[in-house]
Amino acid sequence: MPIAKGYAATDASQPLVPFTFERREPNADDVVIAIKYSGICHSDIHQARNEWGFSKYPMVPGHEIAGVVTAVGENVTKFKVGDHVGVGCFVDSCVGCATRDLDNEQYMPGLVQTYNDVEADGKTPTHGGYSDSIVVKEGYVLSIPGNLPLDAAAPLLCAGITLYSPLRHWKAGPGKKVAILGMGGLGHMGVKLAHAMGAHVTVLSQTLSKKEDGLKLGADEYYATSDPETFKTLAGSFDLLICTVSAPIDWNAYLGLLKVDGSMVVVGVPEHPVPVHAFPLVMGRRSLSGSMIGSIKETQEMLDFCGQHGIVCEIETIRADQINDAYERVLKSDVRYRFVIDIATL
Amino acid sequence: MPIAKGYAATDASQPLVPFTFERREPNADDVVIAIKYSGICHSDIHQARNEWGFSKYPMVPGHEIAGVVTAVGENVTKFKVGDHVGVGCFVDSCVGCATRDLDNEQYMPGLVQTYNDVEADGKTPTHGGYSDSIVVKEGYVLSIPGNLPLDAAAPLLCAGITLYSPLRHWKAGPGKKVAILGMGGLGHMGVKLAHAMGAHVTVLSQTLSKKEDGLKLGADEYYATSDPETFKTLAGSFDLLICTVSAPIDWNAYLGLLKVDGSMVVVGVPEHPVPVHAFPLVMGRRSLSGSMIGSIKETQEMLDFCGQHGIVCEIETIRADQINDAYERVLKSDVRYRFVIDIATL
Repeated sequence: MPIAKGYAATDASQPLVPFTFERREPNADDVVIAIKYSGICHSDIHQARNEWGFSKYPMVPGHEIAGVVTAVGENVTKFKVGDHVGVGCFVDSCVGCATRDLDNEQYMPGLVQTYNDVEADGKTPTHGGYSDSIVVKEGYVLSIPGNLPLDAAAPLLCAGITLYSPLRHWKAGPGKKVAILGMGGLGHMGVKLAHAMGAHVTVLSQTLSKKEDGLKLGADEYYATSDPETFKTLAGSFDLLICTVSAPIDWNAYLGLLKVDGSMVVVGVPEHPVPVHAFPLVMGRRSLSGSMIGSIKETQEMLDFCGQHGIVCEIETIRADQINDAYERVLKSDVRYRFVIDIATL
Repeated sequence: MPIAKGYAATDASQPLVPFTFERREPNADDVVIAIKYSGICHSDIHQARNEWGFSKYPMVPGHEIAGVVTAVGENVTKFKVGDHVGVGCFVDSCVGCATRDLDNEQYMPGLVQTYNDVEADGKTPTHGGYSDSIVVKEGYVLSIPGNLPLDAAAPLLCAGITLYSPLRHWKAGPGKKVAILGMGGLGHMGVKLAHAMGAHVTVLSQTLSKKEDGLKLGADEYYATSDPETFKTLAGSFDLLICTVSAPIDWNAYLGLLKVDGSMVVVGVPEHPVPVHAFPLVMGRRSLSGSMIGSIKETQEMLDFCGQHGIVCEIETIRADQINDAYERVLKSDVRYRFVIDIATL
């Protein structure tokens, strides 16, 4: 069995520590990847600390993985040694399931998450990208366009697709007014992607502290949600509002910013339910919706789109021994805009 | 000024009483209607009792109006004396407004409600259908197909369009699984309409007491929501779930009954906000939406559809002096399925 080095959470309350473990033996349809960079997603913290209640330890987090192919199984046709590849939030889905829907596999029950889950064999724990190698079925490996640097491309595998999918599904494009709520790891990708799709983009952020960045990344307008005037000025303005904030906020106020038939799409998941009043929904046939990552097919489409438009994340690269500090800084929103672990420092 | 007889609420806490008032002088583009029947909608009670906080007294409720044309202004081309006509929830909208949208006028800011509002002149109070006549601009008068009895057609003007519009907007039809939550005045119309559109229809009602009616009206399946098994059996089942219940219920449980990309559409408005968890939205790209009546154009389309399919409401006709009793019975859900006032008894 191939041996991997990584960083793991060993229980909900301890910092992550260096961890050596076995990767599974590659099969004929597997791709072996030397991981070069791994992004830090807020959901890594939720899971490392068991905030969603289904964590298994030891856990090697990381589902924003960029690396280079080092070996391929004999049935693999799409990849060869040396290719730049990525792995996102899942590494298997309901294979053989009658209802398997390639456009929506991320919502199907048989999904196998990249970490904190078990492989399709029902027993082998999956481990993520805070490590130096991974073995993944060809069908779940993504091709990273050659013009994108691997470090800044890594977070596209989660932050990128998390915004790309709802922007596409709700048809962001020319003539559409899109608001991105939250200017963090997810939000700044929403700005870049919606702008590249041709939509008119407004950032709604707590303060104006990142306004200059927002406008540089493609926003047309930038408003502070701490200013009550914002909600008067922008009432009834948007076709689509993507909420990247998982802190408890008043969703009703944001629903009021939608046009008739507008949609507010939640991609950040607050820990507790949020009180929703029927009036803002009913008075404008508005919708409150959710969206979660994207299918493998759509993730590849997103990477190709990013390749064509030269889009990557804004990142701060860290050493592996800085992971625990980075977690604290993520919780304080003290990152512009995504931490990426340089796996060479493991 | 034409004199009208009716029943009015005089303040939030008193029963409705007989009331005589002046209707406005008809203009060249007005239709004068002898009201024959007026349905009782739950929202009449909310407004008569000022439960939404914007009631003006005296108030003649009623926005499910069916009658016969008795006079037309010289510019009126669509109606003549003797025609069967209806008036619904609004009698004017943003005329001259740059953004007037005939498909969505019910969501526009300039809407003038049939009662508890003021006419476009900004001062004349509007009064509704619990009365023997009304003067309405031609553009807000609906034609009731000749094969539909006026008494049972009256509630189509609110209950009918309130269900028809979301069923059409969310594309109920062959191959679609539609759930109607609540088997009351709104819900039973949802069953009839969704069935006529060709959808597979499931009723979700607190108990099975109205199951026989539901199946007779067109439901394919009928489940009790008081049985926890219902939520297991039906998990992930529906493309569209229309919630006609305005009592506080756990929306999250119903969101779990939707398929991927399914929509739950609220047409009953609970008084207080309902806690909504992001998980059921995010885990299946589901939507929680609202819908409110329909445009004049769509209301006419609905009436024509009902004419073609012979659809009317199930009603219990009452005398005018039974209005206050009927209100109490509505609050106890003791009506199958809509009260209609026989205006001849005024």
